[in-house]
This record gives sequence, C-alpha cells and structure tokens, in this order.
Amino acid sequence: MTEISAAPLDPAGIEPALRPFGSSRTLPAQAYTDPAVLAWERRHLFAGAWTCLGRLDELSEGCTQRAVSAGDVGVLLTFEGDNARAFANVCRHRGHELLAEGDSADRPAAVCPYHGWAFRLDGSLASAPHMAGTAAFDPAELGLVELPVAVWHGWLLVNAAAKAPPVAAYTGALSGLLMPYDIQGLKAGARHTYVVEANWKAIVENYQECYHCPLIHPELCRVSPPTSGDNWTLPGAWVGGTMDLREHAETMSFDGRSEGVFIEGAPSRTILYVALFPNLLISAHPDYVMTHRLTPLAPGRTEIECSWLFPAGVTETAYAVGFWDLTNRQDWAACESVQRGLTSPHYVPGPLADNEDAVYQWIALVAASYLDPAGAIAAQCSWNTQPASAPEV
Amino acid sequence: MTEISAAPLDPAGIEPALRPFGSSRTLPAQAYTDPAVLAWERRHLFAGAWTCLGRLDELSEGCTQRAVSAGDVGVLLTFEGDNARAFANVCRHRGHELLAEGDSADRPAAVCPYHGWAFRLDGSLASAPHMAGTAAFDPAELGLVELPVAVWHGWLLVNAAAKAPPVAAYTGALSGLLMPYDIQGLKAGARHTYVVEANWKAIVENYQECYHCPLIHPELCRVSPPTSGDNWTLPGAWVGGTMDLREHAETMSFDGRSEGVFIEGAPSRTILYVALFPNLLISAHPDYVMTHRLTPLAPGRTEIECSWLFPAGVTETAYAVGFWDLTNRQDWAACESVQRGLTSPHYVPGPLADNEDAVYQWIALVAASYLDPAGAIAAQCSWNTQPASAPEV
Amino acid sequence: MTEISAAPLDPAGIEPALRPFGSSRTLPAQAYTDPAVLAWERRHLFAGAWTCLGRLDELSEGCTQRAVSAGDVGVLLTFEGDNARAFANVCRHRGHELLAEGDSADRPAAVCPYHGWAFRLDGSLASAPHMAGTAAFDPAELGLVELPVAVWHGWLLVNAAAKAPPVAAYTGALSGLLMPYDIQGLKAGARHTYVVEANWKAIVENYQECYHCPLIHPELCRVSPPTSGDNWTLPGAWVGGTMDLREHAETMSFDGRSEGVFIEGAPSRTILYVALFPNLLISAHPDYVMTHRLTPLAPGRTEIECSWLFPAGVTETAYAVGFWDLTNRQDWAACESVQRGLTSPHYVPGPLADNEDAVYQWIALVAASYLDPAGAIAAQCSWNTQPASAPEV
Repeated sequence: MTEISAAPLDPAGIEPALRPFGSSRTLPAQAYTDPAVLAWERRHLFAGAWTCLGRLDELSEGCTQRAVSAGDVGVLLTFEGDNARAFANVCRHRGHELLAEGDSADRPAAVCPYHGWAFRLDGSLASAPHMAGTAAFDPAELGLVELPVAVWHGWLLVNAAAKAPPVAAYTGALSGLLMPYDIQGLKAGARHTYVVEANWKAIVENYQECYHCPLIHPELCRVSPPTSGDNWTLPGAWVGGTMDLREHAETMSFDGRSEGVFIEGAPSRTILYVALFPNLLISAHPDYVMTHRLTPLAPGRTEIECSWLFPAGVTETAYAVGFWDLTNRQDWAACESVQRGLTSPHYVPGPLADNEDAVYQWIALVAASYLDPAGAIAAQCSWNTQPASAPEV
Repeated sequence: MTEISAAPLDPAGIEPALRPFGSSRTLPAQAYTDPAVLAWERRHLFAGAWTCLGRLDELSEGCTQRAVSAGDVGVLLTFEGDNARAFANVCRHRGHELLAEGDSADRPAAVCPYHGWAFRLDGSLASAPHMAGTAAFDPAELGLVELPVAVWHGWLLVNAAAKAPPVAAYTGALSGLLMPYDIQGLKAGARHTYVVEANWKAIVENYQECYHCPLIHPELCRVSPPTSGDNWTLPGAWVGGTMDLREHAETMSFDGRSEGVFIEGAPSRTILYVALFPNLLISAHPDYVMTHRLTPLAPGRTEIECSWLFPAGVTETAYAVGFWDLTNRQDWAACESVQRGLTSPHYVPGPLADNEDAVYQWIALVAASYLDPAGAIAAQCSWNTQPASAPEV
Repeated sequence: MTEISAAPLDPAGIEPALRPFGSSRTLPAQAYTDPAVLAWERRHLFAGAWTCLGRLDELSEGCTQRAVSAGDVGVLLTFEGDNARAFANVCRHRGHELLAEGDSADRPAAVCPYHGWAFRLDGSLASAPHMAGTAAFDPAELGLVELPVAVWHGWLLVNAAAKAPPVAAYTGALSGLLMPYDIQGLKAGARHTYVVEANWKAIVENYQECYHCPLIHPELCRVSPPTSGDNWTLPGAWVGGTMDLREHAETMSFDGRSEGVFIEGAPSRTILYVALFPNLLISAHPDYVMTHRLTPLAPGRTEIECSWLFPAGVTETAYAVGFWDLTNRQDWAACESVQRGLTSPHYVPGPLADNEDAVYQWIALVAASYLDPAGAIAAQCSWNTQPASAPEV
C-alpha cells in the first residue's frame, strides 16, 4: 500500500481555507472536480479514516461473513457471537475475493472459491491445498490482512487503511451528545438511495448551513427558523450543532406534528445535526434519527443512502420520510448546480457568511487533511489542539 | 485561471505543419486524439478566442438572461434593450450557477437560487444576505466576472477567457466580404444537429477542400465543378474562399434551381465558404446562408449545429436543406474514417495537394496557436504579419 | 511510432515474478489494473509480437482486402492467390482508412475513399490525383507501410509493430507438437464470443492451471483428473502442456464420449493445452481443437472469441460446445473475482503452488517483457536461453 502523503493539490490554493473564520475562503475548484483528488480522498480520507459501513445489526443479520468496501478497499467482515472483525477481501494466493462484494455467507470459515484456500473467522490460514511442497510457503505469514473495526451507537465503522486514531478519540465529544437518543436501540423504518451529480464535500457543506433554507426549503422553514442554527467546537472528527423547532412544531414534518413516539430523554425543542468525518451525516430529532451515508462514485457523483431510524414499534413513518425526501431533493438540485459552477475557470473561492461557521470548520478540516491527512485528523481528535471556538466574524 | 501556455504537444511534431505550402505536412496524430490537447483547445482556442454562441435574436428572445457555454467556460448572457453582456456563470459566494446552462429568465436581476445573492444585469452585486458582519466582505469586489462579447452579422460572439484581439481585428476582412448578404436580416428556416465521431479540426479541414468532392459528393459535383475553388489570404482569424456554380445552376441544390428568393446584391455565380476560427463555418449562397457551428465533445466527437438562414418570407426550404443534409452526411462518414486512421501508430502526417491551400492555412493557424495561442491569433489578425499569398506549389 | 521501452511499472514490483519457481510471486496489481500498462501492452505485447487475427480461410474468403486490428494498430490485409500481406490501414495522404475495420473488398486495388489515392495489393502507390505539381511529392516514398504477416497451422498471425523474431523461431517447438492435429485441414464448427470483466492475463493464468478445477469445474473433473497436468519447457513464445483423460473418457464432453470423428494420428489419451503469446489459447483434443482468441478491451475487460474446429464432415458439435461453454463460464466468473481482488491496496502478490508451473512460466515471460519486450521475447524463442526445466519446488 502506498505511503500516506499530501493530496495532489497546490498548497497555495489550500491556504485561504485555513485562515480564521471571517477571512477564509472556500476550497479550490480542483478539490471538487479532479479525479486524482478523489482517488486520493478515497484512499486517505475514506480508507484512511473511520468510514461508516451501515448498521451492525443489518450487516451481521443471518451471516458470519459479509463483503463490503470502504473507499477503494474491499473489506471482508466476519461475525462470531458479538465479535465483528474486518479483513482485506483478498485471498493471499492469487487475489480472488473470498466473497463477492455485497454478498454474505453463514459458513464457519472463509473459503476462497478459486483454489480452496480456507481462512478461519479470525483471519488465519486454516488450509491451502498443494502448497506443502513449495519452498517459500509459510502459513503463519499468509493470514488475511486484518483491518481495525468498531461498533459505535450501532453503526459499524472500519478504518480500512489502518491509519486513523482510536475510535474513541476519533468520535470524541460526539459520542456523549448522541447518548440521549439511544441510537443502538432504534430500528430502521425506511431507506432511500439517491445518486447526486455533485462532489461528496459539496453535499456535506450544503448540509452544514441553513443559510440556503429560505430560498430552497419553504417547508422546512415552516417548522424551524432558518436562523436558529448553533454549532459546537468540540474534539473529534466531526462538525455540527443544533436547530430549534418553532413553537407549534414538535418535530420536523410538513405540519410539525409527530406520528411516532418520542425518544425518552432526547432533547425535545432542538434537532441535532452533525457530520462524522468523512461520510456519515446524523440528524437527530425528538422522535427519529435520520442519517445520510455518502459514497463518492466520481468527482461529480455521490451515492447517498438515507435511513430513518425510529423507536421500536413505530410503523407510521411517512410523516418524516415524505418531509425529508422533498427537502433532500431540494438540496441535491442546489448541490448539482454548485458542482457545475465549480468547473468554471472563473470560479473564485468565495467568502463565508456569519451563519456558515460549520461549513468553515468542515472545510478547514478537509484542507488540513489535504496537507497531512493523518496529522490533521489526529489534531482534530485532541482536546489540546482544537481550533478556538471564538470566530473572527 | 491558469496562464496561457503552449499546448501539450511536442514542438518538433508541429514544425512540419508550419513549412511553406507544398512542403508542409498535416498535424501530428495527438492533435486529434489526445484528451489533454482537447482540454487545452477548449480553454485556449475556444474560451481563448471569439467563439460563436448562435444568433443574437434567438438567444435574447423573450428573456433578460440566458446561460450558455464557450469552450470549458459557463457564460451568463444578459440583455437590456440593445445591450448584450456576458459574465462567468458562477456566483461569487459558493459557486452555484446563477442560471442553469440552457435556461433563460426574464427577471431584472440575476438572483443566485442557493443563498439569494442578487446581481444586476450589469454584473454588480446588489445584495447579499448575512454578509454585512463578515470581516472580509466588500460588495464592490464581488461583482460577476465580466467577459467580452460582440454582435457580428447577427451572431453573438464571446471571448470567454478575455485573451483575444478586439472583434473588428479578429474578424478582419471577412466582415466586408459578408456585407452583401445582409446576414443580420436573414431568418433561420431550418436547423439540424449532428454528433460526429471525429475531431473538430478534421471536420474543418474536410470543409476547406473540394479535392474529395468527386469521390464522395456526386450530387454537389453536378452543380459546382469541384476544381473551381479559390481561396483568399486576408487578415483576420478565418480561412476560406469561393466555389463557382455550373452554368445551369443558380444555387446549391439537387437540380441547381432555387425555390427561394435571391439576396439583393449578393454574388450570383459563386458560393462563399469560410471558417471563422474556431467554430463557425459560413457557406453563403445567392439565396441562403448555411452555417455549421461546432462544439467539441471529446477528442473524437463533435456536435455540429447546422442552420439555414433565408431572406424574410421564404417558406420553401427543403431544396437547400435536403441537398446539404445528404452532403453533410457524406462528409461526416469521411471525417469519422480519418479519425480512426489518425489513431494508428503508422499514421504519418502527409503532404497536401495543390487544391488544399485553405487546409494548409487552417492547419498553419492551429499549429502556430499550439506554440503561442495569443500570439498566433494576434498575428493572423494583423495586416502586417499575414502569410504571403503566393504558395510554393 | 514510439520507441520500444520498458512498461510503466516499478521494476522492483516485477522482480519477485522473476525469481526461481517455488520462490516467485505473482505480478503486481498495477499490471492488471492500470490503463497505462494496458496501453503499453497493446503496443508492445500485441502489436509488438505475433498476434493471431483468426483463420486465414475465413479472413480471405471472397475478398482481396480486409481491415482488422492488432493491439492498437489498424491493419489492411490483402490476398492475391496464396499470398497474404498486411499493411497499416492508413492512407499516406490525410490518414483516412483505406477500408473500414471489419470490412472486406474484392477489388484489384485499395482506393482511398476520401481523395482517391490508389494503392496496389502490394502496397505501392498507383495514383494520386492533383499531386503532380506538389514540390514535395514522391510516389515511391508514399506506399502503404507494410507489416510482417505469417500463416501458421491455418491461422493468420501479424507482427503489427514489426519488432518480433521470425515466426518460425517465435512459434518454436510448438509447431511440431501441433502437427499431428492437421489443424490447417479442420473446419470451424461453432463459435462463441464472450466479454469478460477481467484482465487478459488473468484469463491466461487461469487457463494454465487445473488447481482450481476441483472447486469450480465438477463436470471437467469427471472426464480428466485435475492432477494430471504436465507442462513443457521448450523454445518459443508459448507455454503449456497436457492433461490426461480418465479411463472411461475418449474426449472432453459431459459423458466423455465423442459424437465426432477422431483426428488420425492425434494423441488419443491426452489433451494438449497451450497459450501462444500473447493472445491465442489452443486446446487440442483427439477429435476437435478449441481456441480462445483474446482481445483486451480495457484493463479489466477482455473479449474472447472461442472457436471449435472439427474434421471435415462433422456436424454434431454440441457435445463439445456445450461442455466447454459451461466450463468457460465457470472460469470467467473466477477471473472476474480475481480482477476485483487485484484492485485492493491490501493485495500482495502471492506464492504459487507446485501445480502452477505453467502459470509461473507465463508470468515470468510477461514480467521479463515488461523490462525489455523485444529482448524477452527473443530470449524465449532461443534454444540457448530457455529457462531450466527443473523447478525449485
């Protein structure tokens, strides 16, 4: 595997994004349009960080093994009792996948379907036909390559290039902020998959501000004042804050009413909206948690898996799903236009408004990662090196 | 925006195209096949020169704003009374397009649909919500980036990288040669759009010679002797000349007869056929003007908008349209085969025949532009530096 | 044409493939996944070696000319009596193809359909209109570029970059081994065309071992013991050996019985399976010869033309075609999974088992070619420089 190194971008173009809030500029165009940058990001920001693969209960259901991917790395997940492990999904002989991506199996070993090399669920090589007489054969050296994995609030996270800080430091203060929602106990009530013609970062930036709400989200503005956003500056590789509900509203829906069940102990007057770097957006409501899980397909194309999690027993989900599906589509159209604008030679990175502080934090984290991915992520996860919370604006 | 610089081609491969006519060779294969060369051309020869966007009356009809593109640059056109202006179609905030490409609007300001930044039709920033308190915000610095635009014989030309000579010098002697056709007063009577699997330059080169006419255009040869071509060498970024009609013919049509109206004062025995660099081919007949407007889609793929303009009141257009649609398709098939030949390692730039002098001029202009785009175009537009008109052949 | 040079791969990654058998490793991932490597291979291993174009009788049937391609080179074949010749399919004037790829013609000259330059079937320029007065015109210098061609056991081979050793040395000992099958006299009885999502080399490597047979080919194992393979180490740019039939079987078919005719003098208890570098796999049975002719379409995509040749008069072919179509599809699925595994950053070139000696030979030939294509192929074709046949395993 290639060494971690800076992104293929001119450092001079990255510098304005790192200036103090109020003086900074957005990222240079190439960060959103260059296939070489995305290839670097898939290796260093997706495989190189803790990427969310989905919900553990869904991934492990009825199987001991499942093949997925994180950034540009194929991953074989194994499940034994409560134990989830991750390995590179590559046979150590000729490189055949042990399991096809997207497939799962319920067998006690991962057997390569090509020449029958068998690996235990702990990754060790159990048997390899016809290799006994080979001079250079040592089974102890030929186990599957293991990758760090973690279960966090019910999500399975993998660190497929094995370069990120421990998951507790990585998620930092966010773990506690999500505690009241008991997310591990919620159940997926609906799921939509979108393919959006925009860079994955443009989608996160759009998610981090409500400055655009008055122009493109009339329905959302009816239940939440677009000026109500407030963001945290706390340790961990994440960005985000809260929005308030209007007086008549008890959740985000067309009429502000919930048709579900309120989560005991969860905040009732605010929505929590955060982005866990690099690919999980979490929107926690009094009665449901919505997530967007992003998978970049190309510099200008992103797949978004949108899930709605509800307390056990809730069956009426349309009030939340319909509201957000409309709002999602309004966002995707804006992101797609931004993507087209970013391809112009006359695009100049622009200034940020006072209500774009979370966009600032996100962009600054990405910009610092471009210069030194491991160092920037480590700094973001330390209580000592957090950026000051007093903006210049 | 990147600095103007030489094309990504070996200068030694360009040199033979610049030798005197009779000793020169065609361009090297990479000029027709390399995506990096096309990317350079879209920036330096399309955005970097005066590219034709279409007819002003069609572009401005019923709107104050329209979004188009020139080379790789998105352009916002604005119309106030007789005044047409062009701007980069990129909001100065986060880069959202002010209007989607292909769309038009009839409002008195261009309002970014993302965060509501509003720009007047002269490009100045009229208002930007939430920016008042930002330290680094100065509305006077945040107007749209304006681009040079010109109306010429009814066509709208834009110089989207703002690097080309003034339009009068650029069009040079061609302006006067077209005067008799009163093109501004003609009306579009038909339009075909073709997508051809060939490089845009192969299409222009094919247009500039009738050497191939006896082999692929039997219908054309019935109304015009293929040996009758004669080319000018005059200032301006264009190439071309005339062809004669046979005695029985009064225009280019299957039987040589016109079913339209002759343009008063226009030449009656010759057809004028010229290529305005980089993308407008003009074929002026006694009774109609046909144009091909080229948009490169890939090194080996070009979109061609073919329009037929007639004097007001003409409704019978099939005699001209049918004749040229057949002739066009004969040309496209030849260009597509040339494109395949250009991809062979055994392709060697070839010699030109005595009736390929306009091909020579065109190739020499492109070759000189590869070495120094701004310098070559400026030289082509000067009365002092025009190449001598006496060929070596 | 560019000079022959090393492949765009790190030599340190190639070295392990060149170690003695038993200590060697497979090729690095980039060899299977990088478009730059495939572009190099199409030029240096396909156009640069003797590529099989198909059967002479099929290619020449009813025509004097046919246009095909070898690697990235367009080829015009001409046929006069028993004489087959090959030329670059590029007019020496402006590069138009003399004939469209896939087309054939029955005329006594190749006439460029663009400007009428005519070339004799021996490639010389017969006439070129309008060139007489051009200063730099010399017909003797403007003949078609001729390419080496050979007929071998009924197949037409072309050396489109004119860099490979003479065909007799190139095919070496294989010519004699195939003699008993009288392949020139066999007739094509069936043909399937597959498009497989795997690198062309992964397909050849899969073909060269039966280690995988017990896992994916139950039907094949019923008629041939998967451990029966034995490989030759003899001069020539090819790799391969034999497999035995089980006692009850007289050929490869579902039940081991032949419904055809046995080839007089051909081995009756073994199947010969060889790969002629770079693109022809030959499987010679007692009663039919099957070939796979490979054409790479992308690093991860290959077109495979599978032909079954039978003695004259055989009409019942389903027993052989059905058996191999199933077996082929089992192989293609495995190759496609290997291709996906090769794209992982955790892929590490693996060791080879004792029954992968022909895979070793093939990989070593490719690896040596990456460093010095002409030198490696020449060495493979010499009786002096053949690798020792005593493996280290």
